[in-house]
Amino acid sequence: MKAQVLHSYDESMQKNRWVSLENVPEPRIQGSTDVLVRIGGAGVCRTDLHVIEGALRHHVDPNSKLLPLVLGHENAGWVEEVGRDVEGFKKGDAVIVHPKISDAYFPGINCNGGFAELVHTNARNMVKLPITLSPKEVAPYADAGLTAYSVVKKAARNLTPSDYCVVIGVGGLGYTAVQCLKAMCSAEIIAVDRAPGGLVLARDGGADHVVEANGGEVDEVLSITGGRGAQAVIDCVGDHGTTTSGLAMTRAAGTYYVVGYGEDIRVATGDLVRAEKSIVGNLVGTWAELTELMRLADRGLVKLITQYYPLQDADRALQDLHKGLIKGRAVLIP
Amino acid sequence: MKAQVLHSYDESMQKNRWVSLENVPEPRIQGSTDVLVRIGGAGVCRTDLHVIEGALRHHVDPNSKLLPLVLGHENAGWVEEVGRDVEGFKKGDAVIVHPKISDAYFPGINCNGGFAELVHTNARNMVKLPITLSPKEVAPYADAGLTAYSVVKKAARNLTPSDYCVVIGVGGLGYTAVQCLKAMCSAEIIAVDRAPGGLVLARDGGADHVVEANGGEVDEVLSITGGRGAQAVIDCVGDHGTTTSGLAMTRAAGTYYVVGYGEDIRVATGDLVRAEKSIVGNLVGTWAELTELMRLADRGLVKLITQYYPLQDADRALQDLHKGLIKGRAVLIP
Amino acid sequence: MKAQVLHSYDESMQKNRWVSLENVPEPRIQGSTDVLVRIGGAGVCRTDLHVIEGALRHHVDPNSKLLPLVLGHENAGWVEEVGRDVEGFKKGDAVIVHPKISDAYFPGINCNGGFAELVHTNARNMVKLPITLSPKEVAPYADAGLTAYSVVKKAARNLTPSDYCVVIGVGGLGYTAVQCLKAMCSAEIIAVDRAPGGLVLARDGGADHVVEANGGEVDEVLSITGGRGAQAVIDCVGDHGTTTSGLAMTRAAGTYYVVGYGEDIRVATGDLVRAEKSIVGNLVGTWAELTELMRLADRGLVKLITQYYPLQDADRALQDLHKGLIKGRAVLIP
Amino acid sequence: MKAQVLHSYDESMQKNRWVSLENVPEPRIQGSTDVLVRIGGAGVCRTDLHVIEGALRHHVDPNSKLLPLVLGHENAGWVEEVGRDVEGFKKGDAVIVHPKISDAYFPGINCNGGFAELVHTNARNMVKLPITLSPKEVAPYADAGLTAYSVVKKAARNLTPSDYCVVIGVGGLGYTAVQCLKAMCSAEIIAVDRAPGGLVLARDGGADHVVEANGGEVDEVLSITGGRGAQAVIDCVGDHGTTTSGLAMTRAAGTYYVVGYGEDIRVATGDLVRAEKSIVGNLVGTWAELTELMRLADRGLVKLITQYYPLQDADRALQDLHKGLIKGRAVLIP
Repeated sequence: MKAQVLHSYDESMQKNRWVSLENVPEPRIQGSTDVLVRIGGAGVCRTDLHVIEGALRHHVDPNSKLLPLVLGHENAGWVEEVGRDVEGFKKGDAVIVHPKISDAYFPGINCNGGFAELVHTNARNMVKLPITLSPKEVAPYADAGLTAYSVVKKAARNLTPSDYCVVIGVGGLGYTAVQCLKAMCSAEIIAVDRAPGGLVLARDGGADHVVEANGGEVDEVLSITGGRGAQAVIDCVGDHGTTTSGLAMTRAAGTYYVVGYGEDIRVATGDLVRAEKSIVGNLVGTWAELTELMRLADRGLVKLITQYYPLQDADRALQDLHKGLIKGRAVLIP
Repeated sequence: MKAQVLHSYDESMQKNRWVSLENVPEPRIQGSTDVLVRIGGAGVCRTDLHVIEGALRHHVDPNSKLLPLVLGHENAGWVEEVGRDVEGFKKGDAVIVHPKISDAYFPGINCNGGFAELVHTNARNMVKLPITLSPKEVAPYADAGLTAYSVVKKAARNLTPSDYCVVIGVGGLGYTAVQCLKAMCSAEIIAVDRAPGGLVLARDGGADHVVEANGGEVDEVLSITGGRGAQAVIDCVGDHGTTTSGLAMTRAAGTYYVVGYGEDIRVATGDLVRAEKSIVGNLVGTWAELTELMRLADRGLVKLITQYYPLQDADRALQDLHKGLIKGRAVLIP
Repeated sequence: MKAQVLHSYDESMQKNRWVSLENVPEPRIQGSTDVLVRIGGAGVCRTDLHVIEGALRHHVDPNSKLLPLVLGHENAGWVEEVGRDVEGFKKGDAVIVHPKISDAYFPGINCNGGFAELVHTNARNMVKLPITLSPKEVAPYADAGLTAYSVVKKAARNLTPSDYCVVIGVGGLGYTAVQCLKAMCSAEIIAVDRAPGGLVLARDGGADHVVEANGGEVDEVLSITGGRGAQAVIDCVGDHGTTTSGLAMTRAAGTYYVVGYGEDIRVATGDLVRAEKSIVGNLVGTWAELTELMRLADRGLVKLITQYYPLQDADRALQDLHKGLIKGRAVLIP
Repeated sequence: MKAQVLHSYDESMQKNRWVSLENVPEPRIQGSTDVLVRIGGAGVCRTDLHVIEGALRHHVDPNSKLLPLVLGHENAGWVEEVGRDVEGFKKGDAVIVHPKISDAYFPGINCNGGFAELVHTNARNMVKLPITLSPKEVAPYADAGLTAYSVVKKAARNLTPSDYCVVIGVGGLGYTAVQCLKAMCSAEIIAVDRAPGGLVLARDGGADHVVEANGGEVDEVLSITGGRGAQAVIDCVGDHGTTTSGLAMTRAAGTYYVVGYGEDIRVATGDLVRAEKSIVGNLVGTWAELTELMRLADRGLVKLITQYYPLQDADRALQDLHKGLIKGRAVLIP
């Protein structure tokens, strides 16, 4: 089958080509609960860039040789073949694939992913799509969307109509977060972004207030919140100073949720203690949460903005993402 | 001042007149945190009928002589006078009054209430109104609305986008419950009512499904929910068989919230155990919850349907309520 | 292999013999995640009596013919054989078996259980035993003990050192409940039982107060709790009036947990609403909770009182249980 | 009355004398809910040292002149006089005083405290002592003990018998934390301290494991916890590198609670995100929690180790604390 393969890391991210289209052997059913999925769409995500630059290899497995690797951890498509103990799924069913094959394997990170015609997974990761949704439309929900949903679900439990929730960074992930907040709680939503395009997206997603991150964003959030700050701050950036400004926007006894990552958090223990603030790290959601997110999508309460690329143009999609040229999320179609 | 006074119970609810308009002494500041509020509107509630028929007297105080009593526990208006230790409120401030004066006193039930020109309360019960809201528009939120908000807040914490929530009975209380659910969670809302008018109200409030309670309502809810029943059922009736049908609509591991009351709940322990269902009784909300509800109202996320009556027509309002002639909630205006 | 088989129901529970020792075919590995466990001990439980009298057949499956059936849903032993996709377990490992094979099957209820030399289950139900614990010592934890642990875990989350928790009925299940409460929270524990033996057991398990159920138990609990009642009441009986007395012992805003079953709960909606009480049905715990309970047992924080019977004397064990002659729990050993 | 007064800050903490015994005017009842308490004991706390060095003045009030100030925020004694609206307390009642007079005032920090014969407070801060407890025995619970109780209550909600909880630093605060953990949950407790005396205290309080903080403490905690780390880490030091080692001891999806303060927390966002760890700041507990802690003390489930000093020796007590010479907590007695 055709697949886009990463052969070497590019730590400085300066190469013109990162992956190459190749003919590789098709994956095969091995365990009795294995499933093969014919890819309908595979989301392109900032984590793919981290894989390409080699930033994850030591976290994932300090010893093993991970390359060559087929990227792609946001996969949706149709069931192609199932192991003999798989119940409830048959060939042709439209599905989205939760990214965790098992506690050890994560496709596109340390085993082959979905920048290909087929991907290998396990029955436990499968979520059937409602008839209103096609694989290519939902693929980015498998990881970025699921992360946004999951952090909003945590935050929403503690948000009342008297509270404010800030979302920092309204790209693919933040746009889903804003929509989920709108659907799942009644806090007032404040979106913060450096780019006017992000603020437009935030308004479209349901933000009650938008704030340009031009250096005065902390003051503006404090002003909107009556000087107290927000009960919850969801930081989809985690870089370029947002950890400092995010914590400063968080009110006493509130929670700063860090989702995007890059820089170090640095905070005085005395400040955390006196204001009783919490900091919560968020990676991805569960299988059950992916089914919940698909219900939101089915009912039209969240939507994605996607740009489609043919599978052979994976490199162009990755480069566009790296250059900040993608509005919403890129999806590869075999 | 003018006030509507109840002098005797009417157990069979057959009298033509229940309360009488009289000149009574004005309440006075006694403790240093007392507050007098000039009534802008006083909600008329089914609990007033229970007081009139004497149904509450044994629960409230088995020994004391409660009558004569000024009814009215849903009060809003303007601050008239404050005790010397009251901070943050001054004459003329528009307020809604939380009904619990203290753990022992509840105005309109066991001390004089708001069917009058002035009501006596405590600074701890005061919630300032935003400038978008006038007292007469919000008075019914003080008890019925607050109860609806409070039970929805409890339920919403456990509701995901995959869940269903049933509201049984879409009168004044259920209408607020449907709107709060819409604002505060993403469960699909199923409204059940005997009257077509209730179903119209439910749709207006944001119900995703409406079901006529004509004997087939349990089957219809099971059908909508894929045979499983709803994760949460909020019963605003609690009478005429709704406790049985409400529990039957509740899915395994789900919760049946009883808000309205009248009949006995009767359920086999084996059925509760096998299906791990919960039953939760709900009375009213806290002061903090009343401030949260006012935020929802301020932002236009909940609204009331009210019918205004002058204070001298309190008896007509009560009789109309008793006969089922009121759409939404009745409010008395001095 | 040898197994004790139920061939017909005994609705009046008057027969001298209920099960018969027979040679039956050994279960076999079918799915790739199946496991066979050689029984080291199988707990005898009141639910077995409910199966014998046919009380569960309509709940379990209204259409199918369930008999003949090998009873036994509290099973522990050693791994005998595993399917080819089973990881982490090998022949000889000491294990306790969570009773849910899948959402559809429950051994000893609607498929063959552990009153036999071997039982068939799934890898997902297996919990490895620490070296301090042998199968026959822990078998009753698989269902009765797990139920007690699970309800205590729910209750403990809301219990502070200022609260009281009542346990009604200190037999096998209640004895575990008292010990779990002692280990897992700091509420004061009040045990209620009709039999002096139960009260002795309660004291041994760590109850702070014991109350004889002689008609004055509600008053006595109210007296101990300063007139308010207990924040949590765990009813391990659910029969002979304990639902009424249990609810009466529950304080305002408290929770009555029903675990044992038999009679109907009957309660006025008005009483539930005014006191904001909750009623929660409890069946059994999860696989994760069974691992947690094994940690408590490993650390000596819970223990069982057991009476061992050889497998061929299953009928005697069942009759002894029916007659109330068993102190603690009976365990069959093949 | 006699009081110990701070007249100037000592930023380098090198003076021989910090406070001076003086005759000052007695505090007087002003508001109708005010209370005067005759001091039976006043705890000496590390926060007093922070006040003396001036470390808190900018946090408390950047503009005002706070000095001269009577220190002392851990106060217990007997009611001396009550305002006219105070109910439920009369002269001579033994009480412990919650430290928050109101959201704005904290005695011994920005208004006069309890290193004196009398302290001024509000009825809402009063907790009556059971007859088993005398004021001087419990005074340190008012702040340090309450903080320990409060953080343990937060942590205990998420701790199962399969979990581990680390307490870093077993001085006055950590000793109470260990005892509260033992009473309130069934997690295994690991105590970490640099001093052998702290480890002895930890064992006495109920720690299951003690670990000397000699540089290998992270490895040792990982070893005890099977390589995963602890579900909860309660850091009572927050200085000298404990924030780094504390986070390293925290397992994936676990929580690091910071209570003591001094150094900055520095952590990579990527590490927090990948391991989904949380960091929670903790200041003090609520009035309700102080009543709960008094129940624990009344029942003998927590105890304090105290060293008594006469009020005139306040300086010696503070110097002893500063030099690390106090075992347990120092209490001043007028």
